[in-house]
Amino acid sequence: MERLDTGTSTAHRPWTLRATRPEPEPLPEGHPLDWLDRAAEGRARAGLTRRTVPRSPSDDLLDLAGNDYLGLMRHPAVVAAAAESAHTWGAGAGGSRLVTGDTELHGELERELAEFHGSEAALVFSSGYAANLAMVTALVAPATEDVEPPLVVCDQYNHASLIDATRLAKASGARVAVFRHGDAEHAAELLRGGPGRRLLLSDTVFSVDGDLTDIRSLAGVARTHRAALLLDDAHGLGVVGPGGRGAVGGTPLGGADDVVVSVTLSKSLGSQGGAVLGSRRVIRHLVETARTFVFDTGLAPAAAGAALAALRVLRAEPERAEAARSRARELSEGLRERGLDASDPDAAVVSVLAPSPEEALAWRAACGKDGVRVGCFRPPSVPDGRSRLRLTARATLDNTDIRRVLDVITTNRPG
Amino acid sequence: MERLDTGTSTAHRPWTLRATRPEPEPLPEGHPLDWLDRAAEGRARAGLTRRTVPRSPSDDLLDLAGNDYLGLMRHPAVVAAAAESAHTWGAGAGGSRLVTGDTELHGELERELAEFHGSEAALVFSSGYAANLAMVTALVAPATEDVEPPLVVCDQYNHASLIDATRLAKASGARVAVFRHGDAEHAAELLRGGPGRRLLLSDTVFSVDGDLTDIRSLAGVARTHRAALLLDDAHGLGVVGPGGRGAVGGTPLGGADDVVVSVTLSKSLGSQGGAVLGSRRVIRHLVETARTFVFDTGLAPAAAGAALAALRVLRAEPERAEAARSRARELSEGLRERGLDASDPDAAVVSVLAPSPEEALAWRAACGKDGVRVGCFRPPSVPDGRSRLRLTARATLDNTDIRRVLDVITTNRPG
Ligand SMILES: Cc1ncc(COP(=O)(O)O)c(C=O)c1O
Ligand SMILES: Cc1ncc(COP(=O)(O)O)c(C=O)c1O
Repeated sequence: MERLDTGTSTAHRPWTLRATRPEPEPLPEGHPLDWLDRAAEGRARAGLTRRTVPRSPSDDLLDLAGNDYLGLMRHPAVVAAAAESAHTWGAGAGGSRLVTGDTELHGELERELAEFHGSEAALVFSSGYAANLAMVTALVAPATEDVEPPLVVCDQYNHASLIDATRLAKASGARVAVFRHGDAEHAAELLRGGPGRRLLLSDTVFSVDGDLTDIRSLAGVARTHRAALLLDDAHGLGVVGPGGRGAVGGTPLGGADDVVVSVTLSKSLGSQGGAVLGSRRVIRHLVETARTFVFDTGLAPAAAGAALAALRVLRAEPERAEAARSRARELSEGLRERGLDASDPDAAVVSVLAPSPEEALAWRAACGKDGVRVGCFRPPSVPDGRSRLRLTARATLDNTDIRRVLDVITTNRPG
Repeated sequence: MERLDTGTSTAHRPWTLRATRPEPEPLPEGHPLDWLDRAAEGRARAGLTRRTVPRSPSDDLLDLAGNDYLGLMRHPAVVAAAAESAHTWGAGAGGSRLVTGDTELHGELERELAEFHGSEAALVFSSGYAANLAMVTALVAPATEDVEPPLVVCDQYNHASLIDATRLAKASGARVAVFRHGDAEHAAELLRGGPGRRLLLSDTVFSVDGDLTDIRSLAGVARTHRAALLLDDAHGLGVVGPGGRGAVGGTPLGGADDVVVSVTLSKSLGSQGGAVLGSRRVIRHLVETARTFVFDTGLAPAAAGAALAALRVLRAEPERAEAARSRARELSEGLRERGLDASDPDAAVVSVLAPSPEEALAWRAACGKDGVRVGCFRPPSVPDGRSRLRLTARATLDNTDIRRVLDVITTNRPG
């Protein structure tokens, strides 16, 4: 490693201090990050290497891997709104929403999201991940009046962002209990007893298999045990419910005071960002205390504008939601007719079991060679350890697309 | 609360299950979120209410509250790149970078960031917050060969995102120790002893007061104790160092194998997003294991394109970095000449002490009325509990702007 040039230190430029002392010698006896190589070898041996594969703009694969369920990511009105918002407001928000990063555009998006969902209020974040961290940590935060630590009861297959949120809640003193996937009675058992605050936390549509949880039962259990119900509707918004209002939106639960819902702007709405929907007091609490709101730069205007335009397209063309669901059913039925173990889709996600992680990878690669991009989930992304392909339907797929997908997936099946 | 319409349940639309059973009755004896009102009252009594204040597009306040240090957020080339990227790639990335959300644009941005910084590689995230969560949690993750849990040693004033990252690390078994702000000797003490892995974690330029930590000393301590050095250069990139390469970039430490640096794309680069810069094996490790990379939608193309354009402007006009620093020094000197307790800026942030949270708020409001937007930090955002105004200089402020800011702040001083 070469030596630094010796810079001129001035009172006002202390960063040049760096250059005024001899550089520390590298340690002879090894390196603090050498373990990374061995960890990488371990993943490689287990067939769990992952890499990014950059798309080119001329990429013409038929995409069944993304979450652009309504085909709005490249919709002219959505793209135009992204461009126009950058022109009007600048390329970034410029700071935290509490400082200078808040614009009328953010407010407009929040009002329309809340109205669409049937909630009193909404709050927009830089990602769905950040929205989930905020929702859980702020609502599980210790309160002076607590008689015992709050308890969060979680579905075992909750999304990684909810799991991280729960870990943060635990770090701030909360108790955490995990119920068997989709098992409301197990959730009820775990919620029993004690005078403390309780929260019940679940995805609505689970991201890997696309199954919709029994929200009505969870809501019943939550109310019986005086728990607030927190739901992540990332894969529900735009796809399920009346006019794509999601698994909760447009029903009384969507406007209920004890129910809080998070969504992302990055899937059906084709953009980036996330939001929490709830009562005015919940949103106020998040504005004032949620760390991923207070200490994060506001969502870029282009992303906010694109999401707002996408929401308006969905309101004008609610049939897109039903189209995404029908295409998913056609995919699932077609695959099952061809003897594959495909899930019965509740939303727009279909998963297809593969015999092993290696075969799942090879299957995906073969489909890609034949012009169809599908997702591939291997441990640890699949909580049950069973690797699968993950296909997503899109409202804009036509019959020829569906036939092609069915052929390509079937032709390339392992074994 | 009204009843749901009774929908028609079909095997394929289980989300209508919601509508097939009677709605759970609200509990008579109170509400699980009632505590939020009392928490809000508590904050109000302590003078710690916060609210968002949406800007209008015709807002003509002189902004000294944001982090657009180089004046690139509205630069024509940057805005045009945001618009063009949305047109070329769509309004969103469409999925995780590991699935379908990776584009050549992301790769180009990463190559140019790494080259500018002098690192082997870079990885872009949806926010700086997400980049910090990834950097810390992935590098502190337990390894099979660990003889004892890894130890993370943190500056007491680290940014909220690093603190959350550290909490997550702790939840996965790491030990955490906190050293007095800027005190490398205290850090050394905490790093002593035991055979386990060690990491030293600090902001470079601290976000509230804008002071630059003594990176050379931290690096010396880290190497003496075989610790990896993890630095958050969110407020350094674009402002300090040669040509705005940041507190580490462009020096041998920037390319060192045992140093990992995070930056944001949302401050000097006027956009949204974050990045981690490091050796190829560090970046590979993040791609394969960092949860806020694997389980998060890729950065929106408009934001990636805008950041790349901003980086190119900075390379073509490196004098912007020095301009931001000079303007900050002029602000600080001017305020001190007028008898105010202003910090001596190492970068582009100047903080000015206020007698109390209430007076800080009133001071900021009065400046706003006079056309100058400044930030105001109150507990718990100021770790030492001393409220202050936070001003940020921008490369594009002219002498008239500086005079106006000095007058407005001085005229409206409390008491
Ligand atoms: C269920 C679920 N929640 C939250 C997220 C995070 O949303 P985002 O990618 O917008 O950050 C995702 C996926 O990305 C998800 O699948
Ligand atoms: C020191 C520091 N690190 C990280 C972040 C997070 O970056 P971003 O806002 O881009 O998510 C911020 C502020 O927002 C910051 O001040």
